[in-house]
Amino acid sequence: MHFQDADTTMINAALEKAWSAFTQYRNFTLAHRAQFMYAIAEEMDKDADQLVEAAMKETNLPEARLRNERTRTVFQLRSYADHAKSGHWLDVRIDTADNNRNPPKPDLRKTSVPLGPVVVFGASNFPFAYSTAGGDTACAFAAGCPVIVKAHPGHPVTSELVAKCIMRAAQRSEMPEGIFSHIHGRSFEVGKALVTHPRTCAVGFTGSYTGGRALFDWAAERKSPIPVFAEMGSTNPVFLLPKKLESDAAGIAKQLANSITLGVGQFCTNPGLMIAQEGPGLDAFISELSNSIRNIPGGKMLHEGIAQGYDERKQRALQQDGVTTIAETLVETEAQGKPVIATASAEAFHNNPVLHEEVFGPYSLIIRCRDKAEMTSVAAHFEGQLTATIYATDEELKEAMDLVDSVRQICGRLNFNGVPTGVEVALAMHHGGPFPSTTDSRFTSVGGDGIKRFVRPLSYQNWPDSLLPEELRDENPLQIFRTVNNKLTIDTVKRSQ
Amino acid sequence: MHFQDADTTMINAALEKAWSAFTQYRNFTLAHRAQFMYAIAEEMDKDADQLVEAAMKETNLPEARLRNERTRTVFQLRSYADHAKSGHWLDVRIDTADNNRNPPKPDLRKTSVPLGPVVVFGASNFPFAYSTAGGDTACAFAAGCPVIVKAHPGHPVTSELVAKCIMRAAQRSEMPEGIFSHIHGRSFEVGKALVTHPRTCAVGFTGSYTGGRALFDWAAERKSPIPVFAEMGSTNPVFLLPKKLESDAAGIAKQLANSITLGVGQFCTNPGLMIAQEGPGLDAFISELSNSIRNIPGGKMLHEGIAQGYDERKQRALQQDGVTTIAETLVETEAQGKPVIATASAEAFHNNPVLHEEVFGPYSLIIRCRDKAEMTSVAAHFEGQLTATIYATDEELKEAMDLVDSVRQICGRLNFNGVPTGVEVALAMHHGGPFPSTTDSRFTSVGGDGIKRFVRPLSYQNWPDSLLPEELRDENPLQIFRTVNNKLTIDTVKRSQ
Repeated sequence: MHFQDADTTMINAALEKAWSAFTQYRNFTLAHRAQFMYAIAEEMDKDADQLVEAAMKETNLPEARLRNERTRTVFQLRSYADHAKSGHWLDVRIDTADNNRNPPKPDLRKTSVPLGPVVVFGASNFPFAYSTAGGDTACAFAAGCPVIVKAHPGHPVTSELVAKCIMRAAQRSEMPEGIFSHIHGRSFEVGKALVTHPRTCAVGFTGSYTGGRALFDWAAERKSPIPVFAEMGSTNPVFLLPKKLESDAAGIAKQLANSITLGVGQFCTNPGLMIAQEGPGLDAFISELSNSIRNIPGGKMLHEGIAQGYDERKQRALQQDGVTTIAETLVETEAQGKPVIATASAEAFHNNPVLHEEVFGPYSLIIRCRDKAEMTSVAAHFEGQLTATIYATDEELKEAMDLVDSVRQICGRLNFNGVPTGVEVALAMHHGGPFPSTTDSRFTSVGGDGIKRFVRPLSYQNWPDSLLPEELRDENPLQIFRTVNNKLTIDTVKRSQ
Repeated sequence: MHFQDADTTMINAALEKAWSAFTQYRNFTLAHRAQFMYAIAEEMDKDADQLVEAAMKETNLPEARLRNERTRTVFQLRSYADHAKSGHWLDVRIDTADNNRNPPKPDLRKTSVPLGPVVVFGASNFPFAYSTAGGDTACAFAAGCPVIVKAHPGHPVTSELVAKCIMRAAQRSEMPEGIFSHIHGRSFEVGKALVTHPRTCAVGFTGSYTGGRALFDWAAERKSPIPVFAEMGSTNPVFLLPKKLESDAAGIAKQLANSITLGVGQFCTNPGLMIAQEGPGLDAFISELSNSIRNIPGGKMLHEGIAQGYDERKQRALQQDGVTTIAETLVETEAQGKPVIATASAEAFHNNPVLHEEVFGPYSLIIRCRDKAEMTSVAAHFEGQLTATIYATDEELKEAMDLVDSVRQICGRLNFNGVPTGVEVALAMHHGGPFPSTTDSRFTSVGGDGIKRFVRPLSYQNWPDSLLPEELRDENPLQIFRTVNNKLTIDTVKRSQ
């Protein structure tokens, strides 16, 4: 099916409607916003089969994976709605007046207010969870912001169907017109027009470094710059300590082989680099991992461009000086997305920026190090990553705090003895690493704290109680924890006379 | 006294030392960081007279003001240290494992970690509170970041003396070498070299729009962009509703005359615009305000450049179409910083961007509106502001929620029946408005939450309890509130088996 690229008139109309919707929606109660989000989840539940069927046709992803992803998407909508409704995320602070002080101390009350219309770019690798009604859209609605989605051209029909669910939910929940718009666009001009539009207040994106960086630059060059939350590439390094490898080479190899090839390697947390110390543990691990990889078939990738990109980047990496291919799949069922493992010395890796780049697909490179010091030095020279992982015995970890310290500096999530794929939707999740893995390491795109991307604080000074937003009133009608005179409490505020 | 501009070698050395210090300081306990900050406050107390004397010579600011500002500065250091030590700001979230789920739910624990070396630019108008050991420096130290200060060329000797206090405190507190560096530089190349240095991780600045925007642009164009927290200009509009003016024209005029001329108008929260509705209340207010302004003398401004800038910008504003000067000081004591009040119609204001610009000094423009709708329309067209203020009776405010809604959208702090000058150092303070008043409306530069500018979240997944940072351990040794499985609590964490 063919969809017309949006032109300037359509983009202007969407943003002006969104602004008008914003002037109403920002004053809706948290409960009302949550009700809208629950309604979207319900509509997506009703259309579950149709949605999965459309996505199967457009993305080559298998049914089970897509059913899981759709389930995860409605879980996100519901859990972020729960979180939004609770009001804790508003980070309320209240400092009461002291009229006896000279000069008198004012009454100050701080809450969070929405930024304004948010533009969300659908992701190719998550047609549900990071696209039309995905994490960015859910967080923006929870924060009080209207959303304009640019459908990913890899799955425009799926995106249209999800957009219809949102529209039905908006109608049921009496949302203002313009609360949500759905736009198509293959050309980069559509993206640029959306990001540079004066009514756009923030941007969410999951995709390539090139794409994310372009959005970031356009946003920064605006007369009035806006935040861009772009999740870009990550190699998700896995550090393998020798005693742990010796104790369970086969088990770890199996875990990592599965993680590297999961979804044909098309996850942002795919482990693209493994760093280990020469020795019998590493030899055993390589042998086990090679056996596993040889027996895992390739698979159709998301679309032709991604499959070509994988082959090109993989070939380029494998042809670098000092890189040795050690295992490729031997299963001949699929011509695309063939798993491969290679090795290189720390020295070869260190001096070659090509080897630091992400190869999006089921590829992983093992960096052989002479000793722990060399592993730590490799860690210290990584660019920012979404995740990093350490496999070690408890004893080894205790003695590797230098390595841990270096690794911590480069990542947003630090795993122990487990694979980085599988991003739990939970409040304690941080999915956002230092640049270039994301454009803003201070915010997460997974978990309820993702709402904070789309708000800013606002303080009221000496404001009449009855005209304050609910969360700031003396009586604490939302019954949320608030920091009152530097103490966290759910108590009513007592004003001194 | 003349200080040499730092050259590339000096800047490199400062940043490399800062990075090396960072690898140690980031692991210091919160209590140790706080101890360092208390020590700085103590050293600044010991040298109080010498510091104030130096600042008087360099800035033309009167002794009482400088004594107050120094006192505020050590209060900031101590109160941010208290806040840092409490650990609440780490925003700890813990989600415990569930091994019975399929797939098993991991144990996730999120805390905040420091970004790295922070470059702070001293401010001309706050030689203590927003310069060498000012709010930005205090917040960076609290967050776990080393600091490189570029002294403001308007008060280099004061800056040197404060730097010595920090150095003595660093020695007493056994800080690593490089925890603090002090650099001079009149040329913009020094600023650019500091912001673009690969070891610099964040920037704090208080000053002009031109300066702040340049820093922001350099930071955004880096290979690896970094956050810039620049506080730039603000006209701090004051909306005056008619009944309130009728009820107390003289009282409000006196408050605003004082606020406009406080410190020769050299505060970022100086009220540069007043918006009111034509009528007897406004007539009375203008008459009272004019009388007050005529009797307030000018004053020496911070330095010659600022005095010239004030005269030029003031003249330019007063010469615009539709602008009428209504009162100037009649006190002939000082040739600089003469207070002046003018008026213009909403129409004249709306169509002329010159009148929207800040005039840094004791100048304010009254916008005459035909009715409340016109006031609301003026509000909706403002650029971002640090503060906005509404004077109204309770009854009027209740009926002006449209106006409030528009005003809220453009500011970081909303005052009721009080002047915007006087920025309380408190947790509930938000000092950071939408662009162009600051480069990042999501963060405050005043109050303990300012620490959050210099940290990012980090999640630990399935990490051994004994090797977690203190704040994440089951036993909660810091006794802080933590969100455990979506509930805020200070209880010990119980892991399910």
